[in-house]
Amino acid sequence: MSTEVAVIVGAGPGLSASFARLLAREGFRLALIARDTGKLEGLAAELATRTQVVALAADASDPAQIEAAFARAETDLGPPDLVLFNVSRRLRGPIEDLDPQAVMAAYQAGAFAGFLTAQAASRRMLPRGAGTLLFTGATASVKAMPQSAPFAMAKFALRGLAQGLARELGPRGIHVAHAIIDGGIAAPSRPTDGPPDRWLDPDAIAASYLALHRQHRSAWSAEIDLRPWVETF
Amino acid sequence: MSTEVAVIVGAGPGLSASFARLLAREGFRLALIARDTGKLEGLAAELATRTQVVALAADASDPAQIEAAFARAETDLGPPDLVLFNVSRRLRGPIEDLDPQAVMAAYQAGAFAGFLTAQAASRRMLPRGAGTLLFTGATASVKAMPQSAPFAMAKFALRGLAQGLARELGPRGIHVAHAIIDGGIAAPSRPTDGPPDRWLDPDAIAASYLALHRQHRSAWSAEIDLRPWVETF
Amino acid sequence: MSTEVAVIVGAGPGLSASFARLLAREGFRLALIARDTGKLEGLAAELATRTQVVALAADASDPAQIEAAFARAETDLGPPDLVLFNVSRRLRGPIEDLDPQAVMAAYQAGAFAGFLTAQAASRRMLPRGAGTLLFTGATASVKAMPQSAPFAMAKFALRGLAQGLARELGPRGIHVAHAIIDGGIAAPSRPTDGPPDRWLDPDAIAASYLALHRQHRSAWSAEIDLRPWVETF
Amino acid sequence: MSTEVAVIVGAGPGLSASFARLLAREGFRLALIARDTGKLEGLAAELATRTQVVALAADASDPAQIEAAFARAETDLGPPDLVLFNVSRRLRGPIEDLDPQAVMAAYQAGAFAGFLTAQAASRRMLPRGAGTLLFTGATASVKAMPQSAPFAMAKFALRGLAQGLARELGPRGIHVAHAIIDGGIAAPSRPTDGPPDRWLDPDAIAASYLALHRQHRSAWSAEIDLRPWVETF
Repeated sequence: MSTEVAVIVGAGPGLSASFARLLAREGFRLALIARDTGKLEGLAAELATRTQVVALAADASDPAQIEAAFARAETDLGPPDLVLFNVSRRLRGPIEDLDPQAVMAAYQAGAFAGFLTAQAASRRMLPRGAGTLLFTGATASVKAMPQSAPFAMAKFALRGLAQGLARELGPRGIHVAHAIIDGGIAAPSRPTDGPPDRWLDPDAIAASYLALHRQHRSAWSAEIDLRPWVETF
Repeated sequence: MSTEVAVIVGAGPGLSASFARLLAREGFRLALIARDTGKLEGLAAELATRTQVVALAADASDPAQIEAAFARAETDLGPPDLVLFNVSRRLRGPIEDLDPQAVMAAYQAGAFAGFLTAQAASRRMLPRGAGTLLFTGATASVKAMPQSAPFAMAKFALRGLAQGLARELGPRGIHVAHAIIDGGIAAPSRPTDGPPDRWLDPDAIAASYLALHRQHRSAWSAEIDLRPWVETF
Repeated sequence: MSTEVAVIVGAGPGLSASFARLLAREGFRLALIARDTGKLEGLAAELATRTQVVALAADASDPAQIEAAFARAETDLGPPDLVLFNVSRRLRGPIEDLDPQAVMAAYQAGAFAGFLTAQAASRRMLPRGAGTLLFTGATASVKAMPQSAPFAMAKFALRGLAQGLARELGPRGIHVAHAIIDGGIAAPSRPTDGPPDRWLDPDAIAASYLALHRQHRSAWSAEIDLRPWVETF
Repeated sequence: MSTEVAVIVGAGPGLSASFARLLAREGFRLALIARDTGKLEGLAAELATRTQVVALAADASDPAQIEAAFARAETDLGPPDLVLFNVSRRLRGPIEDLDPQAVMAAYQAGAFAGFLTAQAASRRMLPRGAGTLLFTGATASVKAMPQSAPFAMAKFALRGLAQGLARELGPRGIHVAHAIIDGGIAAPSRPTDGPPDRWLDPDAIAASYLALHRQHRSAWSAEIDLRPWVETF
């Protein structure tokens, strides 16, 4: 069993909950950071039966709040071995109609918060020269679609962050990896018709995330894609 | 001679001055937008001997200011046929030392201002179903380097914006193109040793920009790279 | 007027004919290489009213034949300033049904012939440290589609060739560029419904090819894409 | 323990031996295909203490030989669940000096053999609608270096094959994945100076290959990169 510490920024249902459950089963102690921890109560209670878990409220796009949350996690659990940034905010609309404030808010949530997370994480990983920093990307990380430019701006930026940090932090011992989730993640709201396994099982994504963390440092992946077998791409 | 109208956002010396001079020679009327128009006075005076030119002060990352500048340019010159977004702000440093406010400021200047420019431009191009929207990218648009993640975030985002808009606005008649400037642009401050033409001649970049604008709509480029013959890449 | 020499490998109707006509108007002397020069007679006769032109029969995937054709072109016209490789052979079908010999033949025509062309061209350009070498790519150069893997193999390989040669020959004075033609080229066989200019006008492609040749060496493009304004990508 | 069958094309020391050992430990029955099976005798004997193994001689670029080897493997072990194509042949030199026959031979070994392998594998996987097909790529799969164009041609082509087949065979139940090995694989011949783990441990690559095979079909990777933590990229 691991005695590692993991921090998930953008904790909630779906992928982050699956990843938290997997990490709890593997013995990780967990800090879950979300804007509204009220929504995390059930998950935290469930995880607490297996491991030590703290749920922390923070707006991940606020430098002071994210730093405070990481500081609190470190006090309670120890420095992080594994950090996942999993925040995303979609925004759609024709360029001529978009609200600039909403465009900026989507960036702050989806990319600037990633920078803040990376900074708070790396400051705690660098002294030990070890750790894993994961970023959840999307189709829009590599392909910008019509009426979706602001979402692509955030996702492209997050990929640039991950790639730059992979080059910067790798030789300092920190594994930085970016996962392109190219398809819809299974959720109760998804249509149930169509072929089986047409939506990404969040447990399957979680398994690949843990495999990234477990990679030997002589053979790290900086980027993987994950998509359903029947997905058109 | 053209009777077209061009707007350059991020006007200054170097590339944008070269492009302005080329456009003036080709008969374009010109609006030059910069934060500090004091620095544009000499260029504007020079251009005014050839064509109609307005220099407009605006912080390109402020929605109201950029919209006001485009409105003023339209009143004075007519709706834009060609818009170049040419703002960039480098920021370097180890991830653990960067100032979050500076990181956000670099994004606002280098990418969010690009969105605002695209919005102001497209609102004036869509009614006529025609126009060209150019974005100046950099090596960092496609390759994020160590200690340069924030610059890459802005440049990746700008590329995502350009790509999404190429898909969104192309079928509505607007040519959107992104140029990856992969090398240093010639300037008085550059070293003069080394092989000839090792720095990108801004007049040469300007020529390729105008060629993009002149492309027939059946064969538009969405992305080109430009680099010196001796550049390692 | 130019007094340059151009060689087109894979000459025929469509793009290569448009490019030949443009070059003839610009004063280039021309060598047209095709497997079956019988099909070039009309074009060659037309071009001959403007410039010196030779039509040469060669299987571009045969080392001796392509070398002989370049040698003959040099004897008749002088060493090449501009060479276009424009051969392509599509092959479709489910992986399990494809004939290996046809797969290899598609590669030999679409990629190995490109290597031979590049070798014959660079041997004649390197002594003068100048020249332009262009490759016609396709959507399949960057996106491999189902039931089209062999075509993608050739097109990916041709792009790898162009990219490697851009790095190898650029600093030796030769401009190597690859154009991704992302759409159908206008031809008599194309449907005439749909929006105007939905097929790439070969004259428009030719204009961008010539612009590549005319780029200043301080700002060369190694890759451009070209697609119709209404193309989905 | 697995009762699966794996076929490794291009078996030898290094990565393929590590992968074979891992698969043997996991209970796979194994077919090892190499041009010269004499070199496989030691490995095959070692593996035979754990699992059923056959070593088969074939020139992987010969359609009849590769088909015969797969037929024999199927007879002896059953249809393949997992196939790795691991052949590569480097070729370096200035474009003007390369021997066209050597350029073609490098392609036949590094890419055409990959097609033949994919065809033989998919014909045996499609009837069951399941299986994994892995391709070993290299830095040259995505970046073509000077004096290395022929190697890049083969590696780019192999990536195009993998990508096209991922799209073609994924919805038919076969997982196709391409791994970019971006660095040198540890071997007795490597320098021992420098930081630890600077060469890719073949056992670490093997672990990631097996993880690809074990991915749930709702979340398959089509491409991963693998590089040492200290690698510049």
